[in-house]
Amino acid sequence: VCSQAQVLYDFAAEPGNNELTVREGETITITNKGIGGGWIEAQNSRGEVGLVPEDYIEVSQKELIMKRASNGNDPWSAWNADPSGGTSNNWASNPEGTQTGKSAADPWGNVSQGHPQAYQGPAAEDDEWDDEWDDMKSSAVYTESGEAGGIQRGGMHASSMKISLNKFPGFSKSGPELYLLCKQIAKGKDKLSIYVGEVGPVWSYPETQIDCIVADPKKGSKMYGLKSYIEYQITPNTTNRPVNHRYKHFDWLYERLLDKFGSAIPIPSLPDKQVTGRFEEEFIKMRMERLQGWMSRMCRHPVISGSDVFQLFLTYKDEKDWKMGKRKAEKDETVGVMIFTTIEPEAADLDPSEVEQKCEQFSKFTKAMDDSVKEILTVGNEHWKRCTGPLPKEYQRIGKALQNLSTVFTSSGYQGESALTDALTAAGKTYEEIAQLVAEQPRKDLHFLMETNNEYKGLLGCFPDTIGVHKAAIDKVKEGDKLVAANKITTPDKVAMSKRLSTMSYTLQAEMNHFHSNRIYDYNRVMQQYLEEQVKFYETIAAKLKQAHGQFTTM
Amino acid sequence: VCSQAQVLYDFAAEPGNNELTVREGETITITNKGIGGGWIEAQNSRGEVGLVPEDYIEVSQKELIMKRASNGNDPWSAWNADPSGGTSNNWASNPEGTQTGKSAADPWGNVSQGHPQAYQGPAAEDDEWDDEWDDMKSSAVYTESGEAGGIQRGGMHASSMKISLNKFPGFSKSGPELYLLCKQIAKGKDKLSIYVGEVGPVWSYPETQIDCIVADPKKGSKMYGLKSYIEYQITPNTTNRPVNHRYKHFDWLYERLLDKFGSAIPIPSLPDKQVTGRFEEEFIKMRMERLQGWMSRMCRHPVISGSDVFQLFLTYKDEKDWKMGKRKAEKDETVGVMIFTTIEPEAADLDPSEVEQKCEQFSKFTKAMDDSVKEILTVGNEHWKRCTGPLPKEYQRIGKALQNLSTVFTSSGYQGESALTDALTAAGKTYEEIAQLVAEQPRKDLHFLMETNNEYKGLLGCFPDTIGVHKAAIDKVKEGDKLVAANKITTPDKVAMSKRLSTMSYTLQAEMNHFHSNRIYDYNRVMQQYLEEQVKFYETIAAKLKQAHGQFTTM
Repeated sequence: VCSQAQVLYDFAAEPGNNELTVREGETITITNKGIGGGWIEAQNSRGEVGLVPEDYIEVSQKELIMKRASNGNDPWSAWNADPSGGTSNNWASNPEGTQTGKSAADPWGNVSQGHPQAYQGPAAEDDEWDDEWDDMKSSAVYTESGEAGGIQRGGMHASSMKISLNKFPGFSKSGPELYLLCKQIAKGKDKLSIYVGEVGPVWSYPETQIDCIVADPKKGSKMYGLKSYIEYQITPNTTNRPVNHRYKHFDWLYERLLDKFGSAIPIPSLPDKQVTGRFEEEFIKMRMERLQGWMSRMCRHPVISGSDVFQLFLTYKDEKDWKMGKRKAEKDETVGVMIFTTIEPEAADLDPSEVEQKCEQFSKFTKAMDDSVKEILTVGNEHWKRCTGPLPKEYQRIGKALQNLSTVFTSSGYQGESALTDALTAAGKTYEEIAQLVAEQPRKDLHFLMETNNEYKGLLGCFPDTIGVHKAAIDKVKEGDKLVAANKITTPDKVAMSKRLSTMSYTLQAEMNHFHSNRIYDYNRVMQQYLEEQVKFYETIAAKLKQAHGQFTTM
Repeated sequence: VCSQAQVLYDFAAEPGNNELTVREGETITITNKGIGGGWIEAQNSRGEVGLVPEDYIEVSQKELIMKRASNGNDPWSAWNADPSGGTSNNWASNPEGTQTGKSAADPWGNVSQGHPQAYQGPAAEDDEWDDEWDDMKSSAVYTESGEAGGIQRGGMHASSMKISLNKFPGFSKSGPELYLLCKQIAKGKDKLSIYVGEVGPVWSYPETQIDCIVADPKKGSKMYGLKSYIEYQITPNTTNRPVNHRYKHFDWLYERLLDKFGSAIPIPSLPDKQVTGRFEEEFIKMRMERLQGWMSRMCRHPVISGSDVFQLFLTYKDEKDWKMGKRKAEKDETVGVMIFTTIEPEAADLDPSEVEQKCEQFSKFTKAMDDSVKEILTVGNEHWKRCTGPLPKEYQRIGKALQNLSTVFTSSGYQGESALTDALTAAGKTYEEIAQLVAEQPRKDLHFLMETNNEYKGLLGCFPDTIGVHKAAIDKVKEGDKLVAANKITTPDKVAMSKRLSTMSYTLQAEMNHFHSNRIYDYNRVMQQYLEEQVKFYETIAAKLKQAHGQFTTM
């Protein structure tokens, strides 16, 4: 059965790999969808046949199933007309650097690439996952430049978490009123406390903070080596017993956390998916570093780190334990705004006007910080490019020019030349060394400053949605009197709504205070590290130049 | 009497100064040539009337005189047809940065701007000088950017000294044979000795080396302030008595030295003439620095510093002494190749083949060094631009981004924020300070490296001509037998020619050794200075960053 497909993103074939170069918007004919490993075989209009990543073309799993069932002709044409781009768009992994993916403006007006980690409905069964991109066997070469790519790859335009409110199972119809008006009360053991501390409302923090180490990425394979993947070892400090997870398991965890806590707690995206170069050492190292950062941030959060699903991920005993835990987590009904039913602030109810004012303040602050963080990323990225590109080239040219002069001087035939020429050569070599120092430095300092800001960019991108839920609740509570008058709710309902809004506000405040305290810690740490490395850098150069200076004869 | 003139270079009128903007190639009508101060009044085709610098238009003094005498109509048209551009081209000062002047390839293929300091025949009387550009009253603004202009202005494309051999009074017909075959022998007191020292033939150096200080530039004026100029104070270490000179006096000295010694000794050009901005502090400072460099180099040369004309320039007692000395110098007949008649090498005659081999070696070396020096100038110029342009801007942006983040953090409303925000602000300010350090640094180190290389570029540009005289002599001596056979010279003439070629070779060798010893000294000194300042620069930055680092709280 051959069917047509639209190409979503440009794809450049790797020579000698049976791949087919396709362009965004091109229509291709699928000649074999049973290739596996994330690839399909397709034919272009010129009759050329080759492999194309499944994610790069508009293929809907659902449509494929329908297609299999109906055997009808060309269901794609109708499907392609879907103005939203169809559900398969969510699955389309957008490779970094191509910039050809469909873009969407985030809630703060920043155009971002499609968000591959957005909520995608209930997870498929394990067996079905095998065809996902993460298992894809690929020998594609990692094409980005080693230096700058470190930053540009992935997170530089990591998009914000987009909670499409009506995708929350318990939120599909009525927004926050589902919680504001619900009768259901969570069982005692799941209660999440909020205290009023020195800085205001704060979560209840565990006595010992969980942390974990993500390490030892190993290439695994199954189906007799036909499918391969990377598995990471995660060792929590609580059990000190390592568990193994593939990226898709992290992705599953992310989806569960977003589903369960996303209305109250910003859940930052995972590092981006990537189709090409997944097995390249450089990429694996970077992904591991970012998964480590993501896991550490999750561990630091008292609510997330204490949740069953997170504990399952960190401490499952065996395959059976993991599968059972997974199913249980997927059946959890305290998701979406219902998470607020589990929260118990140990403080007096807040006045709605105070709630609104706090909300406004957080909204302003997170927007301002988002702008500021993006400014740092922009400036940092430019600086990165300069430090790894033109600047070392210039120092190299200075070094070469001095050495050339030395060579010319050596040819003078004049006596007593060597003291100067030796010193000139040494000075030239010093500038070549400086060139290398300059080029390598960003990895030692700017990298971490960029990664931290990139993490914060991702985190801040989640706030508009979290704050959006809050604002919707404020609006609903404001309508209270009108709803009572219209007999839509009772007066006790109205009182309960106000009380629940207060709970939501305490939650938001606790979350903001958690954010602030982490932020202060993180920026203090990364700035210290940055400046320390910068000092070392300039001191090293000064020492090298001092040595070069010493080679010239004093006159 | 109105006559037409062609505009040689673009000239932009200074508003409110009665000036007229003209474009290269435009034809204007001279309405008043009696303005003085280097200006003429002219009318363009649109009927606009204003002042234009005399040097910018094709006006020949000779033609003017002819015109005055004949009162004929339009002698310009015929004169303008002169493909060489006419003699007045030598007088046309080519302002920096306009790039519109007629350019000529130098002997090494580098296209350079017209050379305003080229030999221009016997100097006019003092009174006639008053109309020269140096007296021009101008309030034109110095338009080049202050930073990079320091290097680009003037010497960056200083052209090489061009000795048009047939312009030497004593050389007009027959090249070096004038010396090779001359009967004349210089008087004993003018003898210039060459000894064979450790490094080979060397000039006889004076016991105490002359040096002088060029300082204290003062704006002078005459004709009741109608004409103004800059006068420099030159104090030689021999008399310690300052004398005053204007740029045009330096130019006169340069012409005399070129005339007298140019066949044997490379006489580097003076810093370029400049029409606009001559009274700007920045320009005056730069010109003074370069005049100082030029004078010091002349002082260091044993032949030049010992010459009557140079001594006159440094030590004239009064106006009368100066004028008498000038006239005497202008009447000096030991010029051009005749300088070799005064040279007495105290060594055995050299074989012509050895002479040729030495000549070849010097030619190769000076060419190679010229290339290398130009490479350093190119690289240095790019580095200068980066250090004064994009790089500090980037540091400034980093500084601003950190300070912005600090401002945002301050607005958080979270307690205990100030330790971080103070430190962030300090770090941001540090990067702004670094921006300034980076931008200012080239003036402290690269400037001197560039100036030295620029001086050497000028000096090396003189060698092809000096070596050219030498090669012509070698060729002439090779023809010796043929000339004897043709009865053009006698056998004793042939023997004398060979002996005199040996003298020329000793001169060239002494000159090269002088060059080498100066070169080693100069590059040693400038590299030491450069590296010393570079070390200070990097150490200062490291210290500043260390201080910024200390502001962050240790966790």
